[in-house]
Amino acid sequence: MQVYRKVGEIREFTSKARGEGKTVGLVPTMGYFHEGHLNLMREAKKKCDVVVVSLFVNPLQFGPKEDLGVYPRDFDRDCAMAMSVGVDAVFAPGNDDMYPKGYNSFVEITGITDKLCGLSRPGHFRGVTTVVAKLFNIIRPNQAFFGQKDAQQALVIEKMVRDLNMDLEIVTLPIVREADGLAMSSRNVYLNEEQRQAAPVLYRSLCAFRDAVAKGERSVPKLRLGIEEMILSTPGAEIDYVEILSVPDLEPLDTINCKCIAALAVRFGKTRLIDNMVVEV
Amino acid sequence: MQVYRKVGEIREFTSKARGEGKTVGLVPTMGYFHEGHLNLMREAKKKCDVVVVSLFVNPLQFGPKEDLGVYPRDFDRDCAMAMSVGVDAVFAPGNDDMYPKGYNSFVEITGITDKLCGLSRPGHFRGVTTVVAKLFNIIRPNQAFFGQKDAQQALVIEKMVRDLNMDLEIVTLPIVREADGLAMSSRNVYLNEEQRQAAPVLYRSLCAFRDAVAKGERSVPKLRLGIEEMILSTPGAEIDYVEILSVPDLEPLDTINCKCIAALAVRFGKTRLIDNMVVEV
Repeated sequence: MQVYRKVGEIREFTSKARGEGKTVGLVPTMGYFHEGHLNLMREAKKKCDVVVVSLFVNPLQFGPKEDLGVYPRDFDRDCAMAMSVGVDAVFAPGNDDMYPKGYNSFVEITGITDKLCGLSRPGHFRGVTTVVAKLFNIIRPNQAFFGQKDAQQALVIEKMVRDLNMDLEIVTLPIVREADGLAMSSRNVYLNEEQRQAAPVLYRSLCAFRDAVAKGERSVPKLRLGIEEMILSTPGAEIDYVEILSVPDLEPLDTINCKCIAALAVRFGKTRLIDNMVVEV
Repeated sequence: MQVYRKVGEIREFTSKARGEGKTVGLVPTMGYFHEGHLNLMREAKKKCDVVVVSLFVNPLQFGPKEDLGVYPRDFDRDCAMAMSVGVDAVFAPGNDDMYPKGYNSFVEITGITDKLCGLSRPGHFRGVTTVVAKLFNIIRPNQAFFGQKDAQQALVIEKMVRDLNMDLEIVTLPIVREADGLAMSSRNVYLNEEQRQAAPVLYRSLCAFRDAVAKGERSVPKLRLGIEEMILSTPGAEIDYVEILSVPDLEPLDTINCKCIAALAVRFGKTRLIDNMVVEV
């Protein structure tokens, strides 16, 4: 497995692979891998001849009061994990390679970014779409792999690709969970023992939502209240948002009558966790 | 010469050319061709195996009170002219092909877009960079050709390509002028006879600026005043802006001490013309 730090180097690597008729898969990450990341890499490896994992904690997608400085990092462990699943190259640029002095160009998706995490984290998705557009231009993958855990992110990137005529396929893979249902996240390491014990309530509340829909409940206000009550009954859980919206446009709904997503963000102390569940009636 | 209306069709055409090892040149235009456009196409033809001209009056780069509705169009004449210089394909999409219902994605360059035409035409450059990014993604040219007449546009696009790691070369070609010095522009057809007679003052004022610098004048306020006085002495000319700025960052200057550009926008009646001159000391 090769590790590249410079734009020109990884570009040469993928360019050579394409020249040999190979397909290229990209898994964009911020590192500190867990089973969710490895699942993306394995799937990329199944579908593409050459798999590149980008590893870059993108400052542009963090707000000024967010956890950029303390975001967990372990480069050597990440490289070992990527190698163990057959990744061909890691692209780990520095901030100055990605955003040199005078950097001033941004890709912005409006509409579906002004709700959910876009409301709680202003500028977040502009940072995500800008770095992902750059990675797509550098690596020119045939397919790029994202996790359903960041459901809004996946929809925003699919929208960007469609609107801006980017010539690649976005593959979104299901959430990978711990045995007790907690969605895997690099941020789970922030949780203390008590918080970690409490956190699976997010998944339980989403399962209860899914079961209520399956039993015929269609009222969005009632369903949302059900999720909220379950979470608020848990000590230490503070709701950032609980929303039930249409997919893929993330429009508000009164009644479940199409494919829709229940998405939530909840704080345990300083740690903000997200989770979601898609249902279709 | 082929004419394509659909994104999928032109993509297939250029994809096939690239597959055969040919280089692709793109000349993005809004049509109503003059010698300036033909010059870009001829140069593209010299440098690239296959030349695509896009012809799309991009609504996104016109303000609500601007001339989108009356912008001059003559598709058959444009196609004949493109064919006469050996263009291989014209890509002329409809508005709905470029901006389907729900379109919401934008490429925005900050900094160098908040002056000159960016000040007079808010949102203009966001429209330009968005459509050009789309065209680059659709056609994937090796080189794209722009005219120095739209000097700020060329700098903005070069900045976009550099910042977003787009993998192509921008070629900017000198302004093509009428015999009396008026910069060629599709908008020149708006001028009545009197305005057309007066309009070459723009070029004369820029030549006087260049000559003054050559003779040793370095004071930006004095040089700017020289340009302004010459233009304002012409009946019917109304200055939108006259600026002397550094190249490529378009920073304000007190003294000419580097590569810089005198750029101006002047109205004759409802018609707004632009012109510029680069000097290096």
